[in-house]
Amino acid sequence: MGADGHGDEGRGVRLLTGRMEAFSDGVFAIAITLLVLEIKIPADSTDLMAAVLEQWPIYLGYLISFFTIGSVWMTHSAITEYLDHVDPIMLQINLLLLMVVGLLPVPTRLMADYIDAASNERVAVTIYGAVLLSTRLMVFALWEYGVRSRLVRTNLADDHVQAVSAKLAPSLGAYVVALVIGLLAPVAAVVLYFAIALYLILPFRELVAMRRRSSST
Amino acid sequence: MGADGHGDEGRGVRLLTGRMEAFSDGVFAIAITLLVLEIKIPADSTDLMAAVLEQWPIYLGYLISFFTIGSVWMTHSAITEYLDHVDPIMLQINLLLLMVVGLLPVPTRLMADYIDAASNERVAVTIYGAVLLSTRLMVFALWEYGVRSRLVRTNLADDHVQAVSAKLAPSLGAYVVALVIGLLAPVAAVVLYFAIALYLILPFRELVAMRRRSSST
Amino acid sequence: MGADGHGDEGRGVRLLTGRMEAFSDGVFAIAITLLVLEIKIPADSTDLMAAVLEQWPIYLGYLISFFTIGSVWMTHSAITEYLDHVDPIMLQINLLLLMVVGLLPVPTRLMADYIDAASNERVAVTIYGAVLLSTRLMVFALWEYGVRSRLVRTNLADDHVQAVSAKLAPSLGAYVVALVIGLLAPVAAVVLYFAIALYLILPFRELVAMRRRSSST
Amino acid sequence: MGADGHGDEGRGVRLLTGRMEAFSDGVFAIAITLLVLEIKIPADSTDLMAAVLEQWPIYLGYLISFFTIGSVWMTHSAITEYLDHVDPIMLQINLLLLMVVGLLPVPTRLMADYIDAASNERVAVTIYGAVLLSTRLMVFALWEYGVRSRLVRTNLADDHVQAVSAKLAPSLGAYVVALVIGLLAPVAAVVLYFAIALYLILPFRELVAMRRRSSST
Repeated sequence: MGADGHGDEGRGVRLLTGRMEAFSDGVFAIAITLLVLEIKIPADSTDLMAAVLEQWPIYLGYLISFFTIGSVWMTHSAITEYLDHVDPIMLQINLLLLMVVGLLPVPTRLMADYIDAASNERVAVTIYGAVLLSTRLMVFALWEYGVRSRLVRTNLADDHVQAVSAKLAPSLGAYVVALVIGLLAPVAAVVLYFAIALYLILPFRELVAMRRRSSST
Repeated sequence: MGADGHGDEGRGVRLLTGRMEAFSDGVFAIAITLLVLEIKIPADSTDLMAAVLEQWPIYLGYLISFFTIGSVWMTHSAITEYLDHVDPIMLQINLLLLMVVGLLPVPTRLMADYIDAASNERVAVTIYGAVLLSTRLMVFALWEYGVRSRLVRTNLADDHVQAVSAKLAPSLGAYVVALVIGLLAPVAAVVLYFAIALYLILPFRELVAMRRRSSST
Repeated sequence: MGADGHGDEGRGVRLLTGRMEAFSDGVFAIAITLLVLEIKIPADSTDLMAAVLEQWPIYLGYLISFFTIGSVWMTHSAITEYLDHVDPIMLQINLLLLMVVGLLPVPTRLMADYIDAASNERVAVTIYGAVLLSTRLMVFALWEYGVRSRLVRTNLADDHVQAVSAKLAPSLGAYVVALVIGLLAPVAAVVLYFAIALYLILPFRELVAMRRRSSST
Repeated sequence: MGADGHGDEGRGVRLLTGRMEAFSDGVFAIAITLLVLEIKIPADSTDLMAAVLEQWPIYLGYLISFFTIGSVWMTHSAITEYLDHVDPIMLQINLLLLMVVGLLPVPTRLMADYIDAASNERVAVTIYGAVLLSTRLMVFALWEYGVRSRLVRTNLADDHVQAVSAKLAPSLGAYVVALVIGLLAPVAAVVLYFAIALYLILPFRELVAMRRRSSST
């Protein structure tokens, strides 16, 4: 077999990566677009503008969840860019990630519906935060597994790999802090989730710059 | 025409495979994400946590159907990896597979809605199991047709092909057993469907290992 | 510029074709999967099996529309396989095709809801048939425009091109006949729509065979 | 590293562009297809045809929003065709574009629901117009950022680049004019939004022609 078999193996593995990306892109795109279904048109009212503005929690939830899924997608596409190939365990971790991402419209609506309700507000915000944290946790697991199982491209310098890890870990801490704050002050936690999502939307700029610099030397 | 015509034929056939994969990935991704629409937010209640926990059947249904579609997708992408090209009959079998997968949100909700209802519980669980079995049956048909019509890559060893077949057949038996059990004890059958889905999520590890070994010799 | 410019032009055009295919695959996949949202779970009833069976029109509608979109997708992917490149007018025709395909869940539900209603049955079935016909009409327009604007691959023999045209035209006639029949006997027309969809699901087998034969000589 | 590192960089960047296209195609395809969910089947009525025709605002909204998303997609795929690579800021602008596109079904429904309501008609149409304008604004920002950050292909002549910019700017003005008109005559604004969408559907024909001419010399 030799070189022929090797080339074939390489092609097979690359196809598998392509399918994982295509399937994931599909789920990310659908989950992020389904968020809009949670926004209901206000029923016939005398002052439509006021009725729309009263819906602010659902719009805030749309923004937070949209940016969160968007940032997870950006991290996901950065990770697959670093991958040389995938294996079945990575496909499983990826499936769990997609499951949590696909679930996100539900706690988003839950949070928006109960943000004003005295006693249940805390429960709703905590469930929302737990699912947000889970999406980041699964992305982190995906990357860590890839690194430890040597699925990343062999020509990557160690400092690149460590820079990605260093970028992924802090957001987990931020979510845990927000979760705890949410037990005391739910609205403050929601504002924090918004801030984290905005921060994560601008992620891998430094890495790209670093990589460009090292590849031009 | 000769080599030119042959190269053209190859390109055309590969494009067709690409479209089948892209379209299937789309349907799989949408069906798996639409499952979330079956989860309704509990109406304003005094104890939100209890209200959410009371919804356990719909969450269990989400898990089972998510993992089932996920496992069918993994098998599907393994099959297309082995394929050299497709033909119209394979596209038809594939369409039937996608039809059953796309239908899955309905029996999932049916099962979740009627799992507590005395007399209808059996009917709902049986319909659910029948659709789950159908997804596996169509994937099995896709693979068997591909092998018999010599659509698989010619450089595949016979033991690879047989190993895939051996992997696909038992799950069909497991579903039939669960279907029969469901006539007597519906809840037990649902637990079994969950176990089968979990088991199927970890499928082609051995095959990949086997293939890697044979190609490195 | 010469060869360089030509190569670049080729790459640009191929990308454009790729985007058209990817976008179309997305819309086809979503439209075909959204059909399931039209199926509602029967409300709590004493005899669930009977309640499900009473929903037969919606299941029949699901089958007809699923196979129709499936057949349009198969024709669409056969057409793009024959295309060398696309132009803006083709993208517009394609967009109109996708608009009609995306609309299909609505008349499907309309037909299923009104198939029993005495006077409105005719209106509902006629609207349904008109949209089904429109999907085929747009696919036909896509192909005819491609041929006349010389967007098809230049190495295609004229008999291939004529064979595709000959395959696409009759279904238009069949839909017109069914539409007229539907004015007198709506249920008969629905059965006809089902038969046409089934027939169209098995389309380009002969073409592939013809092509394979000619390329091996 | 040298040529090797450069080749690797190129491959990485191209993958990133591919993911941006795939994800965007997904969101565009879903948003454009979800528009159909805003169309509700008329409840059991004596005259179905009249009931369907009475729904004209929702069908007009479907047409306007479908063509608007379609034209944004066409511009988007033309832009990515001109791009050599992307950077994180472009991914963020793209994400904002997708957020506005994904939101479009809501103001579409809002407009359709309130087009007859005396006082709220103005608010609904203005919100609709603002979101339509936003989609075009974000596409314009995407292109301008790409040009200024030198992400476009280096072999593009300056007149091509300016021709694209010249094509994108006027539609922004048209939307602003329609927005102002909508404050006085909401229905006239909706007709204008329809006209703009139709006009934008036929966009880059001249550019393609120009490009073909220059590359053949």
